[in-house]
Order: sequence, then C-alpha cells, then structure tokens
Amino acid sequence: MSFSLSKYLNNKRAKIENGLKTVFKNPGDCPKTLWDSMKYSIFAGGKRLRPVLCLAAGEAVGLSETAALRIACSLELIHTYSLIHDDLPALDNDDYRRGRKTNHKVYGEAMAILAGDGLLTLAFQWISDAESYPASFRKNVAQVAHELAWNAGYPGMVGGQVDDVLSERKRPVLSKVYSIHRRKTGALLLASTRLPALLAGVSNVKVKALTDYGKAAGLAFQIVDDILNETADSKQLGKSAGSDRARGKMTYPAAIGLAASKKEVKELTGQAVRALTIFGAKGEPLKALVLHMAERTY
Amino acid sequence: MSFSLSKYLNNKRAKIENGLKTVFKNPGDCPKTLWDSMKYSIFAGGKRLRPVLCLAAGEAVGLSETAALRIACSLELIHTYSLIHDDLPALDNDDYRRGRKTNHKVYGEAMAILAGDGLLTLAFQWISDAESYPASFRKNVAQVAHELAWNAGYPGMVGGQVDDVLSERKRPVLSKVYSIHRRKTGALLLASTRLPALLAGVSNVKVKALTDYGKAAGLAFQIVDDILNETADSKQLGKSAGSDRARGKMTYPAAIGLAASKKEVKELTGQAVRALTIFGAKGEPLKALVLHMAERTY
Repeated sequence: MSFSLSKYLNNKRAKIENGLKTVFKNPGDCPKTLWDSMKYSIFAGGKRLRPVLCLAAGEAVGLSETAALRIACSLELIHTYSLIHDDLPALDNDDYRRGRKTNHKVYGEAMAILAGDGLLTLAFQWISDAESYPASFRKNVAQVAHELAWNAGYPGMVGGQVDDVLSERKRPVLSKVYSIHRRKTGALLLASTRLPALLAGVSNVKVKALTDYGKAAGLAFQIVDDILNETADSKQLGKSAGSDRARGKMTYPAAIGLAASKKEVKELTGQAVRALTIFGAKGEPLKALVLHMAERTY
Repeated sequence: MSFSLSKYLNNKRAKIENGLKTVFKNPGDCPKTLWDSMKYSIFAGGKRLRPVLCLAAGEAVGLSETAALRIACSLELIHTYSLIHDDLPALDNDDYRRGRKTNHKVYGEAMAILAGDGLLTLAFQWISDAESYPASFRKNVAQVAHELAWNAGYPGMVGGQVDDVLSERKRPVLSKVYSIHRRKTGALLLASTRLPALLAGVSNVKVKALTDYGKAAGLAFQIVDDILNETADSKQLGKSAGSDRARGKMTYPAAIGLAASKKEVKELTGQAVRALTIFGAKGEPLKALVLHMAERTY
C-alpha cells in the first residue's frame, strides 16, 4: 500500500488542532480580550507546516507522539506570534492574513503586541514543562527549549525579520537573501525537525540528518513562497499577491530570476530527500512533505 | 560588623553589569541595529532590582553565584523587553524612561517591537542553557525556565499589563488593583526570589519562604511606586510624575488613599521580613532590601 500524504496530513493536523485546543483549554485569570486575541490568530486556519514537520520528524526518531506534540504546539505558538507582530502597522502593515483580518485590525495594536508577547512566552512555558514529558526524555527538555529560543531569537527568526525590514528597496543580492531566509523562516523550520531528535536523544548522525533535511526543506519552502508571491493570485494565497515586489522585498526571484529560483528549489528538495536515507521507511512522510512543499501552488 | 546595604548593592550591581556584558559580548550575525537597540535599553541605568533580589535569594539558599547570575540576567532581559513594549505609542506612549529617550524614540517603532521580541527570546535562550550551570543544578533548569515563562506570560506579567491597559479610567477598586499589581510587576519579582530556590532544589519550606517573601516584597515595591508617582517629582523619578493619575491608572493611592497605601506597605514589609526567619543570618541582605524598597524616595 503506497503512502498517502493527504491522509497523513489530515491525521496529523487533527492531532495538532487537538493539541492546540489543549493549550487553550483553561484561561485561568487571563484577561478575556487577551485570551480571545491569542486564540483568534492561533485558530486562523494555518497550514500547521511546522508542527506537521515536527510530528513527522518525531516519528522518524521514535519519539512518543505526546512529546512531539508538545514541541509541535510550541513551534506553532512562536510562528503565530511572529505573524501577529510582522503584520503590525509599524512593520508590514498588513490588513489580511490567511484571508481573515489581521490581529491588530480586530483587537487593536496594543492588544496585538501583547497577544504576540503572550504567545511567545507561552511557547516557552509549554515546551519547558519537563513533567509533562515521558520520564526518559526529561533530561533533554532544557536543551530543547534553549535551541528553540536560539532559533526564534536574534540569531534566528527575529534577526532575520530585522534584516528583512532593513533590506527593503535595496538591490537584491543572493547572499543577503539567503541570509535573511535562513533566519527569518529557515531557523524555525529547522527547529521543527531538529528539536524532536534532540528530545529523543538519538545519535549525532540522526540529529545531523534531520538538521540537513530541515535546512534544505526550510529554504526550499521559502523560495517557493517567494515564487508564488510573483506567480499566484491573491485568492490562492489568502494575502496580497505581488506584495513582495511592491514592497521591494529581497526574494530569490528578485535576486536570481524565476527560472533559477525554481532550479534551486529542485536542488534543495533533492538534498532534503537524500538526508533521509538513514531513516529508511520511517522517513517516508518527511520525504512526501518536502516534495509537497516544493510542488505546492498556493 | 553591621551589614552595609550600599556596599552590598554596589558589589552585586557590578556583578550584574558584568553578567549582562557577557550576555551581550558576541553579536554573531545579529543585525547591528537590533543589537544596538537591545543594548540601548539593557544598559540604560536601571536599578537592577530583580537581579539583585535573585542574587540575594541565591545566597540565602546556597546557590552558586554563577548559576544565580544566569537567572538574574534572564530576569533583567524580560523586565527590559516589557519596558520597551510598554513604552510604545500603542501602549503607554512614553518618550522618556530612566531619564533617557525610550527605545522607539531612538530606533523607531518597528525596531523597538523587534528588540523587545529579541530580548524576551534571549531570556529563555539564556536561562535554559543547561550546560552553563554546575552539573548538580542541571536537572532543575527546565522547571526554572517553565516557571519564568509562567510568571512572565499571560498568567503573570503580560496578563497584568493587559488588565492595566483595560482598566485605565475605570473606577479604582482595591481587588482589581491588587490583581493587576500581583501580575504586572509582582509575578516577575516573585520569580526573582523563587527561581533561585527551585534551581538550588532546596526544601519546600525554603521555597515557600522565598515565595512568601517575593509576593509581599513585590507588592510592597509596586505600592511604593504608586505612592511616589503621586508624591515625588519628575526629576527624582526619571519619568513623568503624576502620570498614573493623568492616565487614570488603577493604583493603590487611587483606590484606598495615600495613608492606607503607606500602611499596607508597612504590613507587607513585615510579612516579607518574617518569611526570612528560616534563613537566619543568610537572609540579612533580603531583609535589608525589602526595607530599602519600602523606604525609598525615588
């Protein structure tokens, strides 16, 4: 029986939705507006790419799904906070995201800033809750939280976001685009496949395999994003098509053209697939995922 | 020889400045503007109250100073991010802080938002770096990071900040002011004394003693802040005097008057001091600190 990615995605996404519902089960004495604002963006119909990659990587290294799901939810909390802050008037000033009004358009700027802060902090509260993991993994929890912070912070996502903002309307240079993508989106995608391996405490060879996969797949994903921003329409994207070009963003197509960008995606996809060899059949979902990411049209 | 608080403060503050310099030793490939913006606010001449309390609590429970300093720096990173975000135009819209221009007045709103995000994330990168602690404490690092997130996030500081914003210009009610203060400033001050005890892995009785101390001292500190905002002048405060009243903030003086607020500070100070009994002479610095916090005039 051949592997069905659509069934796999449905299955994993259902688990991720349940996981995120568990995160948002009990508001305690959280102010209602803050709670609603955080939930609004978390349950806004995202593709859940990072958590899906995390669960698939967890399977490849034999991590329990409960443990992988805890990392998966933390990754989605961080991804979502970054979208809320990126959309703010002082940054990208976007009114729509995933076809719905952005957080600050619904809750106002002050609440959007604080909801982002709340989600970011909640990610670390969630991932570092050692007692929630099976006992055999607990000793690795601090390192996993540490690496998440590294990838999400100034050495990773936040640094990339700053460079992205500062590079607007400058002449696109491949090395700079690479450096922005590696950090702005690549770092968290890399964390998605690397952290389950660190938590599981598998061999360095396996950690390296998921690191190589995560790096290549993450960059491929962002280049496809750049390409689609040029070639797809707004309805398909759920956000404004052509917005990168309008803003003078540094993208792969802007730096090296569409054809070379597509070739780069193919090359990176091959690298990602080759890195999976060590996992045999257990790497099948990760292989299907990177091929899907490369071929997607929205 | 009697205990000299001023010598103690000088000594600890020098160590904290060195600790923070270590945090900001190597920018790696962090964009220069982001790095400068984060450093601008970290080295803006704060009182370092949270890190000082943390070092003093660490001494009371016999934690190594290296380990306590790592928590201390993380607390200051979080405190500083919260000030940057609070000062933003969408929130308190403050132009000055500690007598200097606020972060967004110097670096712009986008960079101030991202510098805040960077500092918050760096706090978790720093505190969860298990290998940087002496081996005997490593098993407690994840729990310490978890509690820091809990106190900094929606159950603590972020939640309190939201309630503070939402309560502006409403009729001051003591229970509501208490609830705001307990979370907005109290939670991180509580973490300052509780986390060293958790990291050291001392008895529940000692953890509870530092919890009781941190709660009482934290609330006393904020009530004194409320009082001084009414009674001190702007030069003394390094920020606009009377700003709470002008903004219709919920404060203790607004809810119960100046005299009752001062009485409450005295009562809380007594509670904090009594909680220290179990530490004997090792609790001396914490005792002097809470008395100093209660009696300060700026």
